[in-house]
Amino acid sequence: MSKVYADAKSALDGLLKDDLTIAAGGFGLCGIPENLITAVADSGIKNLTICGNNAGVDGFGMGVLLNKRQVKKVIASYVGENKEFERQVLAGELDLQLVPQGTLAEKFRAGGAGIPGFYTRTAYGTRLAEGKPTRTFDDGREYVLEEAIRADVSIVKAWKGDKAGNLVYRKTSRNFNPMIATCGKVCVAEVEQLVEVGELDADQIHTPGIFVDRIIQGARYEKRIEFRTVQGAAVSKKESENPEQLARREQMARRAAKELRDGYFVNLGIGIPTLVANHIPPGINVTLQSENGLLGIGPFPTEEQVDADLINAGKQTITALPGASFFSSADSFAMIRGGHVDLSILGGMEVAENGDLANWMIPGRMVRGPGGAMDLVSGVKRVVVLMEHTARGASKVLKTCTLPITGKGVVNLLITDLCVFEVVPGQGLVLKELHPGVTLDEVKAKTEASFRVAL
Amino acid sequence: MSKVYADAKSALDGLLKDDLTIAAGGFGLCGIPENLITAVADSGIKNLTICGNNAGVDGFGMGVLLNKRQVKKVIASYVGENKEFERQVLAGELDLQLVPQGTLAEKFRAGGAGIPGFYTRTAYGTRLAEGKPTRTFDDGREYVLEEAIRADVSIVKAWKGDKAGNLVYRKTSRNFNPMIATCGKVCVAEVEQLVEVGELDADQIHTPGIFVDRIIQGARYEKRIEFRTVQGAAVSKKESENPEQLARREQMARRAAKELRDGYFVNLGIGIPTLVANHIPPGINVTLQSENGLLGIGPFPTEEQVDADLINAGKQTITALPGASFFSSADSFAMIRGGHVDLSILGGMEVAENGDLANWMIPGRMVRGPGGAMDLVSGVKRVVVLMEHTARGASKVLKTCTLPITGKGVVNLLITDLCVFEVVPGQGLVLKELHPGVTLDEVKAKTEASFRVAL
Repeated sequence: MSKVYADAKSALDGLLKDDLTIAAGGFGLCGIPENLITAVADSGIKNLTICGNNAGVDGFGMGVLLNKRQVKKVIASYVGENKEFERQVLAGELDLQLVPQGTLAEKFRAGGAGIPGFYTRTAYGTRLAEGKPTRTFDDGREYVLEEAIRADVSIVKAWKGDKAGNLVYRKTSRNFNPMIATCGKVCVAEVEQLVEVGELDADQIHTPGIFVDRIIQGARYEKRIEFRTVQGAAVSKKESENPEQLARREQMARRAAKELRDGYFVNLGIGIPTLVANHIPPGINVTLQSENGLLGIGPFPTEEQVDADLINAGKQTITALPGASFFSSADSFAMIRGGHVDLSILGGMEVAENGDLANWMIPGRMVRGPGGAMDLVSGVKRVVVLMEHTARGASKVLKTCTLPITGKGVVNLLITDLCVFEVVPGQGLVLKELHPGVTLDEVKAKTEASFRVAL
Repeated sequence: MSKVYADAKSALDGLLKDDLTIAAGGFGLCGIPENLITAVADSGIKNLTICGNNAGVDGFGMGVLLNKRQVKKVIASYVGENKEFERQVLAGELDLQLVPQGTLAEKFRAGGAGIPGFYTRTAYGTRLAEGKPTRTFDDGREYVLEEAIRADVSIVKAWKGDKAGNLVYRKTSRNFNPMIATCGKVCVAEVEQLVEVGELDADQIHTPGIFVDRIIQGARYEKRIEFRTVQGAAVSKKESENPEQLARREQMARRAAKELRDGYFVNLGIGIPTLVANHIPPGINVTLQSENGLLGIGPFPTEEQVDADLINAGKQTITALPGASFFSSADSFAMIRGGHVDLSILGGMEVAENGDLANWMIPGRMVRGPGGAMDLVSGVKRVVVLMEHTARGASKVLKTCTLPITGKGVVNLLITDLCVFEVVPGQGLVLKELHPGVTLDEVKAKTEASFRVAL
């Protein structure tokens, strides 16, 4: 009984029909089953529910299925970078269920592992947990019950595979693939290199063949890169046109870098937080975590080093340092949710005086999804937010968040372009520092939240 | 900030005190942190709670701590092979909490992953789930809520490690180590080979360094083997002295082998089920799963092939076939619980007409623990029980089990030394076959359960 098929079309033969739930591996466009997606698109089946971390981009990845109007529902953590998707959701043509990234990875794992539900702190108190059962555990905190996801068909992409279906992934293209492989009633895998049984080291197989029903060597791989970023190109053209803003941001990043301690494991969010990596104090050795499955982020690559299988959570090309390790999204968020990451530095839209953070959506405008933000703020030991103090003259440091929150009472330190607030549990905001040239009166005038001063 | 310590004693310096909860990796004596256990024993700390799959043997592994009376409580799935342990439990000197093996592996994973609780079908309706909350999910079945385990200190053993704490395990010595590494407030690892940062392939690290706080190269490794089994020695001396019993058992195994289908993944229990491997029909290709972390069990080794890092769930030395894969106990039971294993063939003490199975304890006599049996019967697609029809003249095929059950309504097929029963959901036992020379009257006389005849 051979698992090997000639091509993507024949590998899906007999499995495809309207109304299926299809789960697909990949993070952004990294590690997606390109050939199988094309075959699903070519099949013309409709009314699909598709699950995966993202929904591709216009015209590539799972985006192809959206362009062809084959999809009725999407379950994902982040759906930016896709205009046709946005149009369909806003027009009510598409049902979108957003799930925090770590919860999503765990839901797929649970689906494959015979665990119908699990509890997590992620999203507690946010609209993504509305209506879900909660339970208080021994630590006195409340947790949300999340249910497993199972798919009719799961499609995954690996680097190497053998004819028994054993799979090995490469770098950050592992991401959601291992869990997705387990959650389908049927799993079809495509690989760049199909080898004979016995050629893979039994200690180094990421997905054992028991999970893979059919396997193909992919005909061709485009391996498109979403944000090709090389050394020296970290400052975008738009940013270089606004040197004052850039200077403010560098100042915030420099201040945030003072929170680093030797030996720390740190997750840096997209945007200003990424700049913190440029300001690590001498003698301080920190390991940067990327929630798509890497510990040990290095600098941006040279042109020659650019590797489509090696990206960060912002989907930029990066490098990995000696001592780095790659792992699945489920393992990555186990790290994050389990409190093993020492520090998370991320951007914000609003911070409230009780430590609530809002940074994932603006109702009425497009929802891009929480990505890993809800997991990070709930799980990481210490959360530092970098945020401009005001937006169009209005304070972003508030008594209560007006936007839907990312986490309840999660912020430990807030660094704005004016000052630094500590959030003291039960006491609220404490003003600890003013940036050079900033007066207390200016901070008072631009802060809606009440705060104590301890300069 | 270096994680590297000179020896086991210094690596534990400042961490040890009375009343700690210590979790230790290993399955039986395979992959146990020998040097760290010795250092804990030498420290003389008392009133410990120790967690791990087993409790060692008399005078080796965690058994050393029991011999030295340092332990007040044990959390484990199987505690056979340890006389002093037995004495302490029966004398009420030691608190023993038994947990099904897959549930235990998942509890450690959950402890490290920030998941305070999860639901599982394993142990539902048995005394190991008594008093635990249950919940019905979309499939209409009830599941048991199990809580995470966190340890004060976790100690693990890997094959290779680098100075940043990245770990690589070898063969079935991986077992519980990866999850245990994540569940401790502090994790100390010992390795056979400590290498420089950058020497390990980032794609092939099993435990990323973020989980490991301290690391040593172990001074020496005894790597004791519990059941050294080589080719040709499968029939024990005791068995060869009872040729009639052996013939009956071979007949049962031969009949069970007829349940195998090409492409099946099969878990064979300890004892008679192991014999099924000798009767796989020609042209049928099955992959044998060992719940301690191996797909692709091969024959017993030659003397030269014996490897302490390569054992089956019965703790016998084995080999692995080409195409095999090794994985952790959590991944192994994800496979089992998630319904990816096609067939489980295991022994029984009693089977009831509703499909209940009892095979894990006899009250009043020593409890060895369920091991993986509760997980297997709850998770595997089809469950075949091999069991002698009577014991000391009394029927073991009953209206209701008198012993504590392993699973509720879990048996699909019962093969005894007299006949074959199918368990039809909602209908009970159906007699399908009589073995040669057995009459219906004999089966009727020796069966307490009611059954329908469909020969």
